[in-house]
Parts: sequence; C-alpha cells; structure tokens
Amino acid sequence: MTIRTVHIDLGDRRYDISIGRDVLADVIRYLPFQMAGKKAFVVTDENVEPYARRVEKQLLGAGASFCDVLVLPAGEATKSYEHYERVLGWMLEHNIHRGSMIFAVGGGVIGDLAGFAAASVLRGVPFVQIPTTLLSQVDSSVGGKTGINTPQGKNLVGAFYQPLAVIADTGALSTLSKREFMAGYAEVVKYGLLGDLAFFEWLEANGTRVCAMEDEALSHAIEVSCRAKAAIVQADERESGARALLNLGHTFGHALEAAAGYDGRLLHGEAVAIGMMMAFEASVRMGLCPASEAARVRAHFEDVGLPINPGAVWGAEDEVFIDSLVATMKRDKKASDDKMTFVLVRGIGQAFVTQDVEEELVRSVLRDFFKD
Amino acid sequence: MTIRTVHIDLGDRRYDISIGRDVLADVIRYLPFQMAGKKAFVVTDENVEPYARRVEKQLLGAGASFCDVLVLPAGEATKSYEHYERVLGWMLEHNIHRGSMIFAVGGGVIGDLAGFAAASVLRGVPFVQIPTTLLSQVDSSVGGKTGINTPQGKNLVGAFYQPLAVIADTGALSTLSKREFMAGYAEVVKYGLLGDLAFFEWLEANGTRVCAMEDEALSHAIEVSCRAKAAIVQADERESGARALLNLGHTFGHALEAAAGYDGRLLHGEAVAIGMMMAFEASVRMGLCPASEAARVRAHFEDVGLPINPGAVWGAEDEVFIDSLVATMKRDKKASDDKMTFVLVRGIGQAFVTQDVEEELVRSVLRDFFKD
Repeated sequence: MTIRTVHIDLGDRRYDISIGRDVLADVIRYLPFQMAGKKAFVVTDENVEPYARRVEKQLLGAGASFCDVLVLPAGEATKSYEHYERVLGWMLEHNIHRGSMIFAVGGGVIGDLAGFAAASVLRGVPFVQIPTTLLSQVDSSVGGKTGINTPQGKNLVGAFYQPLAVIADTGALSTLSKREFMAGYAEVVKYGLLGDLAFFEWLEANGTRVCAMEDEALSHAIEVSCRAKAAIVQADERESGARALLNLGHTFGHALEAAAGYDGRLLHGEAVAIGMMMAFEASVRMGLCPASEAARVRAHFEDVGLPINPGAVWGAEDEVFIDSLVATMKRDKKASDDKMTFVLVRGIGQAFVTQDVEEELVRSVLRDFFKD
Repeated sequence: MTIRTVHIDLGDRRYDISIGRDVLADVIRYLPFQMAGKKAFVVTDENVEPYARRVEKQLLGAGASFCDVLVLPAGEATKSYEHYERVLGWMLEHNIHRGSMIFAVGGGVIGDLAGFAAASVLRGVPFVQIPTTLLSQVDSSVGGKTGINTPQGKNLVGAFYQPLAVIADTGALSTLSKREFMAGYAEVVKYGLLGDLAFFEWLEANGTRVCAMEDEALSHAIEVSCRAKAAIVQADERESGARALLNLGHTFGHALEAAAGYDGRLLHGEAVAIGMMMAFEASVRMGLCPASEAARVRAHFEDVGLPINPGAVWGAEDEVFIDSLVATMKRDKKASDDKMTFVLVRGIGQAFVTQDVEEELVRSVLRDFFKD
C-alpha cells in the first residue's frame, strides 16, 4: 500500500494531505502534533459515523484527555446557521480550549461546517480534515474554504481557514452511492478541463478504471487533483486572481443548485458538470472555443456515465425560471458591481476568467439546456 | 483642532486610527480607499443613528454607488447569533460584493458584531470602524477582535479581523451617559495598571479632566490607550502571549458579566473595574503586591467616581453563586486544561500572566467582595 503525500505550502499555515487506502487505520501517524492530554472534538454525519468512531478510538488510545463525537444529519441542509450554532454550542458546553483539536470526518458539508465552526469558536481552534467523499478529497480538502449556506445562496458565509492536516482514505469512498461518486468525479475532470489537457487525456484513457474505484487509478486521480488545486491556491490563497479558475462550471452550477433547493435532487458535482458544459457552450457561441472541444468533453462525461443535462431535475422551463437563475448568478460572491464573472475556455485545459459575457448569451445557453 | 493618528502596524493589515473632535465631519479624508462606485453598508444602533446618517451622506457625496444603514437595538443583547444572521442577511439581500465596504458606527457591540459579519460574509469584506463610545475607542478599535456572545459566555464565537481604518470622534462621546463614559474610563486606567505607571500617575493628576471630557486631556488619554494596546497587539496579533496582559481584570470581569446576564445592570467596563480590583486583591493575598498599591488604585477609582464593588447588582451571595462564577472562569477562552488563567500584578504598571492561582484563593477573594 503506497501512501501519497501532497504538501500544501502556505507559509506558516502549511500542511500535508495523506492519500491512500486505509490511512485511517493509523490516523495518529499523519497528525503533525501530539494528541496526549488534548481534548478532541469529532464532527461527523450519520453516513460515516463508523469512521468517526474509529478515529475516536485512536485519539483516546493516543492519550486524548477527552473525545466526543457529534453526529449530524447527512446532506446539504446541515450546512445551515442552525447547525453552525449547534456545533459551536456543543464545543463550548464541553469547555473547548484553544489547545483542543477539532476533527471533521465526512464530506464537504461536514468539512465546511466544522471548519467554519473551528475558525470561529474562540476565534480559532485547530482542525484536521478527514474527507470521506471523492468530492471533498479532491476539492474542499485543499484551499481552506469553509462556510455555510444561507437563504441567499451557497457558501455565502464562512472563513478562509487552513486545517493542520488532511487524511484522505480512499477506502471510505465505498460508503458513497454510485451517483455521489460520479458527482465527485466531475470535479476531477474539472482539473483537466481548466488547465491540464494531459490529465484530461489520461482520464479519457483511465476514467472508467477510476470510476470502478481501482486503487492505483483512483489514488492517482486524487493526487493529481489535489496537486492541481494546491498549485492554484498557493499562488492565490485569498481568491483575488488565478484561484477563480477553480470556479469553472460554478457560476452556472451554483445557480442550478440554488434553484433545485439543495434537496438532493441535484448534487453539487452534478451541477458543476452541467455548469462546465454550459461554460463550454457559452465559449463556443462566443467563438472562443471550437465546438469539437465541447463535444469531446460531452463524450467523456457520457463515457463514464455522468449526467450532463438538467432534465433529471427540471422539464422545459419558462423565462421566469431563467430570470431567477440569472439573478442568483449576479449575487454570486465572484460577481462585482452586478457583473457576472465566468470561467470560459479556449479549449480543453485552457480556462480563463472574464466578466465580458453578454447577459443575453447566458440566457440563450440556459434556454437551450432547458428546452429538452 | 488637532487630529491625532495612531499607526497600527500589522504588516499587510496595517491601518490608522484617527482621533479628534469632529473627525466625523470629514470622514472621507480618513479612508485609505476611493469610495466612488463602491457599495457601502453602514451598521449602527438606535443611540447613534444620527452619526451613521452623517456618514451615509458623506459616502454618497463621495460617489458610493449604494449606501444603506441598518439600525440595530442598542445593548449587549444585540451581540447574538440572531443579529449576526440578520446583519448577514441584510448584506446579502443587497448583493454585497468583496469590493463593497462595511462601516460599523457605534460602540463595542456594533463593532464586534459588524466586524464578525464583515469577516464572514463572502469570507471577508473590508470594513471601517467608527467607534462612538470611550470603551470602543480605546479598546475594541485596536486588535481586530470581533465576535458575538453565546449562551455559554461572552465573545466565545468570532474572528480576528482587522479594519481598514478606525475613525474615533471624541465629540460622539457626548451621546454617552455618565455611567457609560465611566465604564469606558476603567479600560483607560487599565493601560496604566498593566504596564505604565507614569500614565497612571498622569491619570491621578488629570483623570477628573478626562472624565469631564475636556478635549485635550480626553484625546491624550485615548491616544495613549490606543498606543499601549497597539504595542501589545503588534507583538502578539493572535493572542498567544503578551496580549493576554490586556485581560487584566477580565477573567473575574467576564464571569461577573455572565452572572449579571448582560442586561445592563453591570456594564463591561464596570465589570472590568471590579475585576481589576479583584486581581489586585488576589495579588496582595498571594504576597505578590503590596496592599498599598491596591489601595492606591481603589482611591483613584473612588476619586473619579467609578463604582468598584458589585453591591449595586448583587447583595450577599452564597456559595452556589461563587461556584457558578468559578465555573464560568474555567470556561474562559484563556483557560486551558480547565486551569484558569489570570493577569496578576506585582504593583501598578507591573502585570503578568499566570495559571498558578489556587482555586480556593479565587473563591476567598470572590466571597469577600460579595460579603457586603
């Protein structure tokens, strides 16, 4: 069993991501601090509670003076003010200190929520991320973005807060439904599409092995994804420039998610996959990108069985619906002065950021996706 | 009219505090950025709304593309999850962007709440603090601590987040009741007690002029206080060491405030004044500090008319009450491994941090204060 390590170098907030099958069997080895005498707070959800219990056992075995596991409901609805308050209350009732350690065992929802709670309880207590979904292993485990959703949209409240360590056990991915796994795979493909044609080509050749969860292919895909994100985040920790490339597919995708209401009908990765196809389509219509490139991306998604039309959630929709999507896009964090920001492409691996997109073109792309 | 400027040097988060009578008449001059084309969000409370309106007018005059004022109830109860959510919702409904500016016009409650909202909305939007109370001008305007209260205690949730500028108009202090002004004065005295005997001696000579709000004396006291806090914060932004000295009187004080229930019966500064006397008393009983020093401090508080016994709020209290105070102290952010952290003194101007205080001694000090 090979353990792959990705170093995230953010000066005094540097940390390592340890990737491999069963790294969770020896969690203490990957912690850059002593657990003896420390209090530990483990946040998890119902789906992966057994993993949290394994972690708890090891922390107590390593001498933690206290360890409690908070099990939250699974699902995007947990990333709310209400659960944020609940997590904070639980920590404070158990007398958390600045020398305590918080562990987030779960997917992006748990990582984002527990990470934001860690950033704000006592104005900051260290935390460790143990991502158990493909999406969180390749995305939210790098970059320090934490936060919750609000009635106005996704991730609109939160903090930039780096973990002390990330431990990504590929074995935990067996807890995922096929659909959830594939949604995570969309973000893997994203790293190829935004800046790495060779990786996209590797995925064209090996994507089905990754999606069958073959160990070597899967770990390689996670490692490359983490390295790609790390390179971008290191260059731009606070998201003022290059980091925006990571939002390929996200301006469209977030609007779709908001419209679907985060009720599980449309997963984040599914929304991003559709959003990336919309971004390619917009790029084609603006004459920036050959139509053949968009077709090639579509073919890969179809190859591995990743749904890229919104028909599963919506039928033919009217202009009122299109209006609401556009309104959400304008409210996006990345927008400024009511101008929408998009990541468009000149081809596979050649993404760039622009605010120079006509609203009518955006509407025409949306209309065509919702015509079927 | 002299404008006094205190530079706060925190590397790329440096900013200036501008202090003087009527600096708010020309607020644009003290902003280190252009307002033209930017959205402005002004958070204030009922007590100082007219000042917020003056700011609004000037921001619009300087070309702000949007300006709205949110007027919150005055009082500590506003530093809650509920109002945090309300402030965030208001900003998001008005499509706040990362290029927008947030202005906090008010005392510590407004500064802490709006600052925490600024730190977390879109994971950080710049903000300017316009403190209108003596306490906030000398304390919360330096150091970047923001946050809210929770059922478990004061300021237990928040962020370290520096403003872009602080504008402290001494004229705004006329909105304060005598009692509120005096509560702020307790924090001014604190800077003398913790590290500056000469400043304490200046206050012994000039304190009554400061408390009569004579311009020169008042501005000088604010400037010295800000410089004292700045020196400590610059050395220790994240509160790992020296910064803890600023908590002189706060371990006791926070417990008293929590017990009083933040209902206005005991102001923060009043609690700190009592807490400082308790810290001096504990130091005397431990043989660290001559009793004459504690008496000299008490004499100054009596001189200027600052209440330093808890009799105004409580009568004689029983051991159950003492237990609850001690339990709160153990839950304090500064505590670790259930050991309480105290700032004690070897004399006026000679404070130090220690965890080496017997719980029984703490209890005996508390008992004697609540005997009367």
